[in-house]
Amino acid sequence: MPTLTELVAAGDRRALASLISRIEQDDPAVWEILGRLHPRTGRATLIGITGAPGTGKSTLVAALAGIFRAGTGSRPPRTVGILAVDPTSPFSGGAILGDRIRMRNLAGDGGVFIRSMASRGRLGGLARAAGAAVRAMDAAGLETILIETVGVGQDEVDIAQQADTVIVVEAPGLGDDIQALKAGILEIADILVVNKADLPGADSTVESLRAMLGLGEEGGDCWKALVLKTVALSGQGVEEVAQAIHRHREFLKRSGEKNRREQRRAEADLRERLRERLFEGWEQKGSRDLAEMASRIAARQCSPEEAVKILLND
Amino acid sequence: MPTLTELVAAGDRRALASLISRIEQDDPAVWEILGRLHPRTGRATLIGITGAPGTGKSTLVAALAGIFRAGTGSRPPRTVGILAVDPTSPFSGGAILGDRIRMRNLAGDGGVFIRSMASRGRLGGLARAAGAAVRAMDAAGLETILIETVGVGQDEVDIAQQADTVIVVEAPGLGDDIQALKAGILEIADILVVNKADLPGADSTVESLRAMLGLGEEGGDCWKALVLKTVALSGQGVEEVAQAIHRHREFLKRSGEKNRREQRRAEADLRERLRERLFEGWEQKGSRDLAEMASRIAARQCSPEEAVKILLND
Repeated sequence: MPTLTELVAAGDRRALASLISRIEQDDPAVWEILGRLHPRTGRATLIGITGAPGTGKSTLVAALAGIFRAGTGSRPPRTVGILAVDPTSPFSGGAILGDRIRMRNLAGDGGVFIRSMASRGRLGGLARAAGAAVRAMDAAGLETILIETVGVGQDEVDIAQQADTVIVVEAPGLGDDIQALKAGILEIADILVVNKADLPGADSTVESLRAMLGLGEEGGDCWKALVLKTVALSGQGVEEVAQAIHRHREFLKRSGEKNRREQRRAEADLRERLRERLFEGWEQKGSRDLAEMASRIAARQCSPEEAVKILLND
Repeated sequence: MPTLTELVAAGDRRALASLISRIEQDDPAVWEILGRLHPRTGRATLIGITGAPGTGKSTLVAALAGIFRAGTGSRPPRTVGILAVDPTSPFSGGAILGDRIRMRNLAGDGGVFIRSMASRGRLGGLARAAGAAVRAMDAAGLETILIETVGVGQDEVDIAQQADTVIVVEAPGLGDDIQALKAGILEIADILVVNKADLPGADSTVESLRAMLGLGEEGGDCWKALVLKTVALSGQGVEEVAQAIHRHREFLKRSGEKNRREQRRAEADLRERLRERLFEGWEQKGSRDLAEMASRIAARQCSPEEAVKILLND
């Protein structure tokens, strides 16, 4: 009987689905499996796609997946994994009919693996689970992995940044609130897509994004974030996004930025793991009544700052 | 010369502003100051207000602040602190003109302290900084503190949960994407406000929220989340929200839930502080080359799981 590790490594989709379910259920055994799969990872192209609700991210993801599956003269067809970290994704019923029809087309294709994750759970939990699911998909040999997140918070940024190429999706006319979010999210975008470009205001959205990005150079070791227009529902402009992803991938390799990003991610992940393990180790060492100390803090008998000193015997 | 601690404790607004600036700048000296101020905290009513972009949260916050300032027959006028953890807040220029006018009215009132915090920085950083700013405002004697966050992510939930009463703001017609987010955010809401209730679809939004909340009981030790309608821009329905906040506050005290929430927050905060301090202590103990280990992980020479074992000598 082959083990789960062997089955995932061999690209078995049911084994992959089962491993991701165990990741979601927080089964501690998954880390050993992922550790054994680690040498098989690092081969996939990881693409993060994020943006506010209503921008049509899911439709764009589906359209991109179709293009990667088909390939072109210069790009061979690739297997595609989609991880939708998104309670509003087509898989959980939140999206428009068009997405569902598109996704149904993809779902019949054995070269596409689709999985959703709900954005609940405790702080950091979702980003970590998403990272683990991406590692599993990578180890299973999926060649291009699209990581879709909804929202405008730090969590979404953290998840998107686990990718090599980050795409931020905007749409015209979503109101001042969302417009104002751009400043923060621009920093992480390698490619900006103004979707629903058939709506009024698309050109002025493109213009204001370009103005915010400012001047920059491209070529060699430099990458200047691109602003592209799409109508994902009809497929218009999506091939240009696929080409931009391809160019960004070439840039990442050429400039050494791919390694730098990967190393940065590995270090941040290592730091987080150490933080958790050190705390667990400390907690197990003796009787640590955090709840009792918390009541003293709440009763203003001591401050949190004093409590830490007492607990650590500083 | 009085110290910063003494000035903040005496309610000096410039000292409070300066302390919050130092919190934002991550000045390590603030923790000692906050520790000394700790006995003076726990007096304010903390109200968290969150919701997706475009729901009109800022307008509602401004309208509520006006009502708390004025007081009514049964509620004395109170001093108000507003912490807008929100890149789209009126204070940073992202909101509609109506908000600005309203806020300008408030800004002329010495009984109101307004402060914004930008949602950047590393994971957890903003929630912690916001918590520290709330402690400072509480210690300075502000009686009601409104903590406004924008967005739909875990960060916003974490920040809102630092309050005693959590208000989630919705608006009709924001599209399927946002509608679908409700399931997750409903869990943390004590009061749900459907703002912009003059727009079409308001009643059906109220109905679907009530349906999702299901049946529940109120009274005694039970609280059933309320669904209220407002048009914050004209003030319609805002007094009812203020009354609901007052009733929720009474419930919190009567049922002991206020203490339980405070203790839960104190414990989570303590855990986070310990995690950080233990890691810092470990890092300082020897030469810990995390960057070198991260390159080995990125080069697939070892897995993150093995790296943790090696670093901790498991």
